[in-house]
Amino acid sequence: MTSDPTPPSTRTRVQRLPDRGRYDRGTIDAILDEALVAHVGFTTAEGPSVVPTACWRGGDEVYVHGSSASRLVQALREGNPCCLCATLLDGVVFARSGFHQSVNYRSVVVYGTAREIVETDEKLAALEAFTNRIAPGRWEELRPPTSQELRATGVFALPLDEASAKVRTGGPVDDEPDYALPIWAGVLPLGMAVGDPIADPKLTSEIAAPDAITHLRQQWRGA
Amino acid sequence: MTSDPTPPSTRTRVQRLPDRGRYDRGTIDAILDEALVAHVGFTTAEGPSVVPTACWRGGDEVYVHGSSASRLVQALREGNPCCLCATLLDGVVFARSGFHQSVNYRSVVVYGTAREIVETDEKLAALEAFTNRIAPGRWEELRPPTSQELRATGVFALPLDEASAKVRTGGPVDDEPDYALPIWAGVLPLGMAVGDPIADPKLTSEIAAPDAITHLRQQWRGA
Repeated sequence: MTSDPTPPSTRTRVQRLPDRGRYDRGTIDAILDEALVAHVGFTTAEGPSVVPTACWRGGDEVYVHGSSASRLVQALREGNPCCLCATLLDGVVFARSGFHQSVNYRSVVVYGTAREIVETDEKLAALEAFTNRIAPGRWEELRPPTSQELRATGVFALPLDEASAKVRTGGPVDDEPDYALPIWAGVLPLGMAVGDPIADPKLTSEIAAPDAITHLRQQWRGA
Repeated sequence: MTSDPTPPSTRTRVQRLPDRGRYDRGTIDAILDEALVAHVGFTTAEGPSVVPTACWRGGDEVYVHGSSASRLVQALREGNPCCLCATLLDGVVFARSGFHQSVNYRSVVVYGTAREIVETDEKLAALEAFTNRIAPGRWEELRPPTSQELRATGVFALPLDEASAKVRTGGPVDDEPDYALPIWAGVLPLGMAVGDPIADPKLTSEIAAPDAITHLRQQWRGA
């Protein structure tokens, strides 16, 4: 894996285990493009909060959205700085000592202040990208959004200027003398399991699930 | 599902879609006991940060640990208030409009200030619980921790006094007129896929993976 060795800021530099740091946009984008959910942290008068939310990338920004009534949207709308983190868990690493037990993962952290997308065409384009990212072509099938729905939804873009990734892969790394111990060690691979689509019982007629949705099972990787 | 209707504080009250709020310890504990990773948010002079980390519950607390060199341990050690969030993604909900697109999930948020576990026996017990939570009996197989390893590891307990859960289950909920539209709707179930254990190539002899590890594939549910 090629890696840009230069973090964009002090706080994005991977401090603990710096070999796991990745600062190239290829790595960062690939993780954001696989993650369905991110955790967004922000600070209010009540202290730090973390909110899980769907995320998607477009160009040089990562997007989140939510109801105008939600704490996340309120906090971002007020211009609070935030930290978005997306994590993919790839395995449990069983070492020969508890100290070297670990997990394989790929995570991205993005610091910044999100920009609210207020212009209607840009908002529609962002929501289309979100919908079609999960199932290509889905946006065109749906009943179009009303102006009231658009007003009730806040969409925010966070620039990827201050982003870093952290990646652990491979097997356990034990202390040299421990390799002689009769203890099993290895990796239990983890991934995302995808089931067969379950049709809404309220479907009025025999409408088959679109290929874009049935294909997600193949497209999203499991362990 | 029975649900305690009373949030323990204003900030734990589920504000947006309050029907999804759960405040009973049964729900909160079950989510924490299934989650392998939590995201912990805290605020430093540089602003909000979110760090992904392994988590485990013991009694009325949720635990995290890390290297003393890590930003997370440094922040918690300084007594910074934090917010821990654990999220399980159960499915993508395809509705007949983008506005009602959703995901099925179970999440827990815990606010508070973490207590560092400094006493050796309590620290060992916490690390044992973490190790054996993933694979029962594993702690007893491992090379025991050295005092240096223990010193290099920070273990923190966050009380569950100020915790809440948020849960979405089931199919799409569309606007009444939209049910007549010829648009497929339903749920794509998601879960955690667990592969077969991959033995470390450095195993010195034919050591079989312990049952506790091979059984994780059956124990952890997929979609």
